[in-house]
Amino acid sequence: MSNLAEDRGPGRPRCQDTRQSILRAAYEMFEEGEDQPFTIEAVARRSGAAKTTIYRWWPSKGALVIEAFLAIAEKRSAFPETESAVADLRMQVKLLARLLRGRAGRLVAGIIAEAQSDPETKKAFIDGYLKPRRLSAARLIERGMANGELRPGLDVETVCDALYGPLYLRLILKSGLGDDGAINSLVDIVLDGIRASPIRQ
Amino acid sequence: MSNLAEDRGPGRPRCQDTRQSILRAAYEMFEEGEDQPFTIEAVARRSGAAKTTIYRWWPSKGALVIEAFLAIAEKRSAFPETESAVADLRMQVKLLARLLRGRAGRLVAGIIAEAQSDPETKKAFIDGYLKPRRLSAARLIERGMANGELRPGLDVETVCDALYGPLYLRLILKSGLGDDGAINSLVDIVLDGIRASPIRQ
Repeated sequence: MSNLAEDRGPGRPRCQDTRQSILRAAYEMFEEGEDQPFTIEAVARRSGAAKTTIYRWWPSKGALVIEAFLAIAEKRSAFPETESAVADLRMQVKLLARLLRGRAGRLVAGIIAEAQSDPETKKAFIDGYLKPRRLSAARLIERGMANGELRPGLDVETVCDALYGPLYLRLILKSGLGDDGAINSLVDIVLDGIRASPIRQ
Repeated sequence: MSNLAEDRGPGRPRCQDTRQSILRAAYEMFEEGEDQPFTIEAVARRSGAAKTTIYRWWPSKGALVIEAFLAIAEKRSAFPETESAVADLRMQVKLLARLLRGRAGRLVAGIIAEAQSDPETKKAFIDGYLKPRRLSAARLIERGMANGELRPGLDVETVCDALYGPLYLRLILKSGLGDDGAINSLVDIVLDGIRASPIRQ
C-alpha cells in the first residue's frame, strides 16, 4: 500500500479518492488513542463515506482493519538491509515485536480471533500481511545461506515459523511479548540452530 | 482432571456427580463427529443438567470447553519419559501436533479466538492447560541440562516458546500443522540451537 495521502493522479477516478479517504480514516483511528472503538460506523463517520461504500471494497471489518494495519506495519517495520543477513533477520523480528507490543498488537490479536471463524479475514491477513513479510524474510534467509552465515539447505518456511511463531504465541496467550532482551534470547536459540558452524560443515 | 466416569466415592456429594456428568457430556461431544455444534444448550440436553447449573461451575462456554478439552489432551498427549530428555521433548511436541491436527485443534483455535476478548477464557486456558504443560516441558529441559544433552543456563520459558510457538502459529494462521516430518524439521532447528556441543562448551 503506497502513500495514503498523496496518491491522486490526474486521471484517477473519484472512487479511488473515496477509497483512500476511508483507508486514511481507518489508519488515523489506529494511530490515535485507545478509547475510540474501531467500527465500520465510526470509519464511515470520520471519512464521510457511506457504510455501503465501505462494505463494497472491504467485505468485512477484518479486511479493512488488515489493510489499514498494513499501512502502519509497513511504515514501522520496514525490512532493514545490512551486510549481515543474520543481523537483518534479528532486527526484523525485533521490529515486529515492537509493533506487536502496542495497539497494533491488540489489533492483530483481534484479527487472529476473527480469522478463526471468518475465512475472509484469515485470507486477507495471510495474503495482505503474512505472505509479503514472508517473502522479505525468505530473501534474508536465502542471502544468509548464499553468503555462508547460515547453513545451506534450510527450509525457509520452517525457519520463518521458528522465528515468528513464538511472537504470535506470546501475543495471543501470554502476558506480553517480552522486552528486546527477551526477544534476543528467543532469536538466539533459532539462529544458533541454523547458523553455519565448523561442526556442521 | 482425573477419571471422568468412575470418580464417585461413597461420601461424594450429589452435586459432584452432576459436575462429572456435565464434563462427560462435553467430553463425548468432542469425541464425536463434527456436525454437532458445541453449545451449553447441547451439553445441558445431553447431560440432563440445567443450563443454570452448568453456568454455576463454568462462567463461560470457554471455561467448560477448556476443562473438557483437558480431559482429551491428557489422554492423548501424556508426557513420555525415556533416557533422553531431547528425545522426550521431540516426542512431546509431536504429540501436541497430532492433537492439534484434529478436532481438538479447531477447539483450541476457538478457545484462542474467544480468549482475545474474554479474559476468563484466557485465564482458564493458561491456568488449566498451558501452565501444567509448561511445567512438564520445563522438567524435561532441566533434565536435559542436568544430563549434559542441552547446554546449561537455558531460559526454560524461552525454550518452550521457541518449541511450541510455531505450532500455535500454524494452527491459527496457516493451512495446517504439517506432517510429522515437518514437525521434526521445526524441532530440529530449536534443538540444534540449544544442544550441548563441542564448540559451545
